[in-house]
Amino acid sequence: MTTHEKKKTGGLAGIVAGDSAICLCSADDENLLYRGYSINDLASHTSFEDVAWLLLRGQLPNPTELADYKKRLRSMRDIPATLKSILELIPSTASMMDVLRTACSALGTMEPETTSTPPFAIADRLIACFPSMLFYWFHYHKSGKKLVLDSGEDTVAGQILHLLHVIPPKEEHRRALDVSLILYAEHEFNASTFTVRTIASTLSDFYSAICGGIGALRGPLHGGANEWAMALLEKFSTPAEAEKGIKQMLSDKKLIMGFGHRVYTTSDPRSAIIKKWAQKLSQTAADGFLFPIAEQIEKIMWQEKHLFPNLDFYSALTYHFSHIPTPMFTPLFIMSRITGWSAHLLEQRANNKLIRPLSNYIGPNHKAWGPQA
Amino acid sequence: MTTHEKKKTGGLAGIVAGDSAICLCSADDENLLYRGYSINDLASHTSFEDVAWLLLRGQLPNPTELADYKKRLRSMRDIPATLKSILELIPSTASMMDVLRTACSALGTMEPETTSTPPFAIADRLIACFPSMLFYWFHYHKSGKKLVLDSGEDTVAGQILHLLHVIPPKEEHRRALDVSLILYAEHEFNASTFTVRTIASTLSDFYSAICGGIGALRGPLHGGANEWAMALLEKFSTPAEAEKGIKQMLSDKKLIMGFGHRVYTTSDPRSAIIKKWAQKLSQTAADGFLFPIAEQIEKIMWQEKHLFPNLDFYSALTYHFSHIPTPMFTPLFIMSRITGWSAHLLEQRANNKLIRPLSNYIGPNHKAWGPQA
Repeated sequence: MTTHEKKKTGGLAGIVAGDSAICLCSADDENLLYRGYSINDLASHTSFEDVAWLLLRGQLPNPTELADYKKRLRSMRDIPATLKSILELIPSTASMMDVLRTACSALGTMEPETTSTPPFAIADRLIACFPSMLFYWFHYHKSGKKLVLDSGEDTVAGQILHLLHVIPPKEEHRRALDVSLILYAEHEFNASTFTVRTIASTLSDFYSAICGGIGALRGPLHGGANEWAMALLEKFSTPAEAEKGIKQMLSDKKLIMGFGHRVYTTSDPRSAIIKKWAQKLSQTAADGFLFPIAEQIEKIMWQEKHLFPNLDFYSALTYHFSHIPTPMFTPLFIMSRITGWSAHLLEQRANNKLIRPLSNYIGPNHKAWGPQA
Repeated sequence: MTTHEKKKTGGLAGIVAGDSAICLCSADDENLLYRGYSINDLASHTSFEDVAWLLLRGQLPNPTELADYKKRLRSMRDIPATLKSILELIPSTASMMDVLRTACSALGTMEPETTSTPPFAIADRLIACFPSMLFYWFHYHKSGKKLVLDSGEDTVAGQILHLLHVIPPKEEHRRALDVSLILYAEHEFNASTFTVRTIASTLSDFYSAICGGIGALRGPLHGGANEWAMALLEKFSTPAEAEKGIKQMLSDKKLIMGFGHRVYTTSDPRSAIIKKWAQKLSQTAADGFLFPIAEQIEKIMWQEKHLFPNLDFYSALTYHFSHIPTPMFTPLFIMSRITGWSAHLLEQRANNKLIRPLSNYIGPNHKAWGPQA
């Protein structure tokens, strides 16, 4: 293998790892389809529950199916008392991603998948109870409060904001989060989804695959990027300061999170959608500086590096304006992407082949045996 | 992309996913090298602790380094009281793989990796305390006993058997397990190691990557195969019965675990080594039938399908003759493979590129938006 060929396969960039009917992430027209529907239509016309159903079951629900599905998800929000005890034992200092990874794994010991588990059961269960796990842990360690896990809200977005703030959310914030959950739900063979499929390909159980997905999403080169984007935005007080700071970071060759994408080349079709929400919320938040700072950074990154904001950049602002603490940004990504992960897991199982590539050996030649010095 | 090309990339079979200096798994001469040393030399001359050091640090330890390393691992066997409480809460009915996945994840909330964590610290910690986690949970739920986690044994193999049986192991059983831990320690880009590297490639933390590895290993097409091999062996009472049974399974197109390999084509170099140990232990176990049954199955599988036993097949027997319960076989695989996983994780970090392949879209074309029926 030549060096050039080796370089090409680094990180499997450009390598097709399998077939999928779930998502088309198209660099040619910078478009994104879930099961054939464009992300613009979905973000304009549907709810996250529609999209969860679409990704898992392959078509959009009719109104009766949607109403039943919302009821079903609502009925699955409580978690076992033993899991609550475990969440109470997890340190208050823990990363929230580690809390969800551990809680998901622990739930797998209490409600394990068996040969008689219906295909969507664990997916729906996790969609319903990831918010419960996180916010039970959060409030217990913040104030000793043992949270009641059904807020009465009939949407996942409403449940998340209500459990977080312990009051009913403003509709504007709820819908912004709802749209963000739609945008984050699925994105083809990204690193966490590919992890889920690799684990599923050994015929392991549902929880094992999802725990792997959470672990992969945690990294700053993947889901963690939205938290890093927020940290970047908060460094600056004016657009002029941001311009100077970003130019300095670029000249120091620092990695700037929230820009560019492995698949898209000129824009991320999700970014324009969430940017509108960030702008809208910035107005009611009476924020005079963060949104213009973000736009300035966007402008400089395009001027200097021809890099465009990806979904993470304006999502960070949208969450911030909804008073969501930054360490929850990637956990919210889990609460959305569980839908895409689950759809891929089931697709992998339906036509399984063990995912097992080769490595190119660059180590020492065979060493003869001798006693060690 | 033609159908033929698509077929070739299924499961990434034959695709080189990156460089590695850790292991050469050679189909040409059916050999296996760890850092240049042949598996035969390592299994004859070294201990599992030598191999753990070799895989992580790149060379074999000298006698002083080895003695210090054994002391270091021994000093890391205890686990936090909070983790013990969590293990007490995990149901007695849980899969032991789920117990270790959850305990590993929970430890990550208590002893998280930080930017100042030394590179080998978490690897060594997990090598030392995976046996503690499993056997603390096991004895607590079996008899209510809260196990003391340092058995006094100075090897991982001794610690495992001593914690399991709560008496010092026979040297023959200890060394057989020691050899098995050497053989299971590393195997290039297998599904669990590739999972670990994919998670590490997002720059996620050590525990996240290892939890993913455990999840992948759990599947019957990967680590779970040794448990399935034992279940198969126990179906038969005589070699003649085994011959008849296996031929029937083959004619029913049933998958027979413990045979064949994605990389090797005519034999698994590890199988002959562990087979000798299975034979040796069968003699002192005064077992008159399981070993001959295994040999008969090996013969039939070669005759009928040209398939050879892989490491899992005779490992199952070796464990069985050491009075290790079958549901512990894959957990023991974790206690060994943690070394290879950790070496790959560190190698991935040293020259990182996000692992993110593409999918071949086979879903519906763009659907125009319309109200759902």
